[in-house]
Amino acid sequence: MAGGAQHRVVIVGGGFAGLNAARGLAKAPCRVTLIDRRNFHLFQPLLYQVATGALSPANIAAPLRSILRRQRNTNVLLGEVTGFDLGAKTVSLRDGATVPFDTLVLATGATHTYFGHDDWADLAPGLKTVEDATEIRRRVLSAFERAEREPDPKARERLLTFVVVGGGPTGVEMAGAISELARQTLRNDFRAINPRDSRIILVEGQTRVLGAFHEKLSAYALNALHKLGIEVRLDCHVVGVQADQVEVKADRPDAVAAAIPTETVIWAAGVKASGLGKLLADAVGGVPTDRPGRVTVNPDCTVGSRSDVFVLGDLAVQTGADGKPLPGVAPVAMQQGDYVGGVIAARLKGDTSPPRPFKYWDKGSMATIGMAKAVAETNGLRLTGVLAWLAWLFIHILYLARFENRVLVLWQWAFNYFTRNRAARLITGENAANPAEPHRAVPPGEAVVKG
Amino acid sequence: MAGGAQHRVVIVGGGFAGLNAARGLAKAPCRVTLIDRRNFHLFQPLLYQVATGALSPANIAAPLRSILRRQRNTNVLLGEVTGFDLGAKTVSLRDGATVPFDTLVLATGATHTYFGHDDWADLAPGLKTVEDATEIRRRVLSAFERAEREPDPKARERLLTFVVVGGGPTGVEMAGAISELARQTLRNDFRAINPRDSRIILVEGQTRVLGAFHEKLSAYALNALHKLGIEVRLDCHVVGVQADQVEVKADRPDAVAAAIPTETVIWAAGVKASGLGKLLADAVGGVPTDRPGRVTVNPDCTVGSRSDVFVLGDLAVQTGADGKPLPGVAPVAMQQGDYVGGVIAARLKGDTSPPRPFKYWDKGSMATIGMAKAVAETNGLRLTGVLAWLAWLFIHILYLARFENRVLVLWQWAFNYFTRNRAARLITGENAANPAEPHRAVPPGEAVVKG
Repeated sequence: MAGGAQHRVVIVGGGFAGLNAARGLAKAPCRVTLIDRRNFHLFQPLLYQVATGALSPANIAAPLRSILRRQRNTNVLLGEVTGFDLGAKTVSLRDGATVPFDTLVLATGATHTYFGHDDWADLAPGLKTVEDATEIRRRVLSAFERAEREPDPKARERLLTFVVVGGGPTGVEMAGAISELARQTLRNDFRAINPRDSRIILVEGQTRVLGAFHEKLSAYALNALHKLGIEVRLDCHVVGVQADQVEVKADRPDAVAAAIPTETVIWAAGVKASGLGKLLADAVGGVPTDRPGRVTVNPDCTVGSRSDVFVLGDLAVQTGADGKPLPGVAPVAMQQGDYVGGVIAARLKGDTSPPRPFKYWDKGSMATIGMAKAVAETNGLRLTGVLAWLAWLFIHILYLARFENRVLVLWQWAFNYFTRNRAARLITGENAANPAEPHRAVPPGEAVVKG
Repeated sequence: MAGGAQHRVVIVGGGFAGLNAARGLAKAPCRVTLIDRRNFHLFQPLLYQVATGALSPANIAAPLRSILRRQRNTNVLLGEVTGFDLGAKTVSLRDGATVPFDTLVLATGATHTYFGHDDWADLAPGLKTVEDATEIRRRVLSAFERAEREPDPKARERLLTFVVVGGGPTGVEMAGAISELARQTLRNDFRAINPRDSRIILVEGQTRVLGAFHEKLSAYALNALHKLGIEVRLDCHVVGVQADQVEVKADRPDAVAAAIPTETVIWAAGVKASGLGKLLADAVGGVPTDRPGRVTVNPDCTVGSRSDVFVLGDLAVQTGADGKPLPGVAPVAMQQGDYVGGVIAARLKGDTSPPRPFKYWDKGSMATIGMAKAVAETNGLRLTGVLAWLAWLFIHILYLARFENRVLVLWQWAFNYFTRNRAARLITGENAANPAEPHRAVPPGEAVVKG
């Protein structure tokens, strides 16, 4: 494609999609530049384990340079992309630098959204970055500490109430993990309070949790949550978040908002695509984005009429074989990454035929509720309980294995399983030394999308 | 001692001294309250391993509540002590609460000092807290990232220059670890720079490194540092720190200051005691503190005429058998903790005889320079090289073993040893996403003493 000089592929975003695309180009005759704001790839599905003190950030993150060390045609660039010039074929970085490309791959993912209530962000942090996770860990652990010192029973109850908003996999996992933290790990740690008295409330807008799964699995999950002592409020929306309460409202015309006194709210609802998607769609021209801001892509993951521009992962919206949009999950992102890497590599070898369209191979999905409690479904086969949990464990460790952390994580989990311990229960960060002070916002720079 | 109600022992500080004192009271007929600003005990001697990406904070920290979970007479209180009322026998906390005591044990340790140049703190962070360590990790790793993107050779050289101030054990360990990071771990990670070109400079004001050790061991350490490619400037003082350079001046009357261009300075010099020491000494009255602010204590670690007030660990200054002040090292703190716990327990059993004075049992000291390079001395026996390193490793793992992290740490070290990897190379924190921006200060709340 390019003339004398080597073809330059610029990949923005080192998540599942971008990293797999880069790996697919390992042997291609091109120069690959992977740009990310962070120096590590993060295994987001286990972030809730960091937020609840079971794992350390380094257990679920691996330096991008380390992963791509031996891929000599690939360069990792730490920087924040702020714009595109598709005429000049460059991306611009926040520090003013421009990076030229022959082929552009954009995979900057998604973050959570507060549905227009961005003022809730400080009071109800989401769970997308390592900093989010350590901030949530700080808040949850500090709530117990403050409760231990609180003489007023009402205030103590409020401090021991934890509200998780959103009943998808992340919300269910967070609620389950907080329950285990309170009822198992911390059960002997305090003197004035009994952590087992904690209330954990999961608020979900739909009529069931894990709405993307089969109804039977939702029912199993609901039952498992109840067994863990978690109150689940279905058909319920959050209509207000204050420093000392959350207001929820049932999804009925005659419903009135009810206040749940709490100081610890975790946001696991809503998806918003990285702002770079809209920016790129506008630059290409005539390319629609959907409500969460995802870019509509062609069957080969290119955008509009630009065969040199790819968008993939959570940032893309693509129609699956069943006519429905593909879900924003890690397997789609990984497979799209593999696919796009292959498409570019084939082109560079001189293959001029149009590529076969991307086809998502749905190997199934799974979610865990707690120790030995999970759901999994694949090709009509549905699993629950210990077997589903072991499958979940196996697949997650298999994935992490690629990043050298396998044995560590396995050990730490085994340790937690048998001792009900969570060794990484550290209250760290700026406000760590003053747990009695009100919650501080996650630094604004951290809450935004990766890219 | 106390009347009907149970005797209340308040221990301030959950470091080596305070924690050991608390443990010594496990079976004593009293109520123990351990107050710390942080929710975890930190194994400070390995903090440099966090600062250089080899270990995660949770590997070297254990929640105080978890350690003392089964000690039913002991209560952990997360709070910051701000003052003492020795008449009313209470300590006051920052949030306004007061905690009554019958016996007070103060062990809030020490931090580094800039010898009157507190303005250097932002540019040359020290290594006392978990936040210090992750901040230094961020700076060191970011320097390589910025160098990779820096076109100007002079600026690149400056970014690849790391200055460690202080040639005691911490400084020597930091310099050695940075050298291994640059020359081993990162050697294949970059494309535009060669991390092996890094300059690591250790500045020491005395005529030798590891001044507390025998001269032969200092000579071995100096040689080992040279072999790791570290430039050692002896007899040299830092006279200025700016954002882009450090000014050092030889210890000769005719010397002129020389500038070392660098953007990464790590402070491992100077000791300043927690401010609570002076506060308590003044409250007791007539009790001297030395220049670093340590409290002069009686042979039984009590203060002045108060037999109910103990000061120990790095906060205390006590004369050893050789007439010299005991060194501010972990073994002294641990032994004083054991001792004071025993003294209080004996009193509570009705023992009214004056306690035998505290006697430090010097089991020896050790410092590591790098993988398989260390020095150790005990009772005139001096070890260097692999044997000293294995001894160092063994003793540190033995200690960590008490906090359940043993196998994890052992595994991670073994892994690092054979792969020269450092898995925890994460750039995290507020400024993590903008590595190109100038260094930010460690949050002021974090740089102060623990207590």
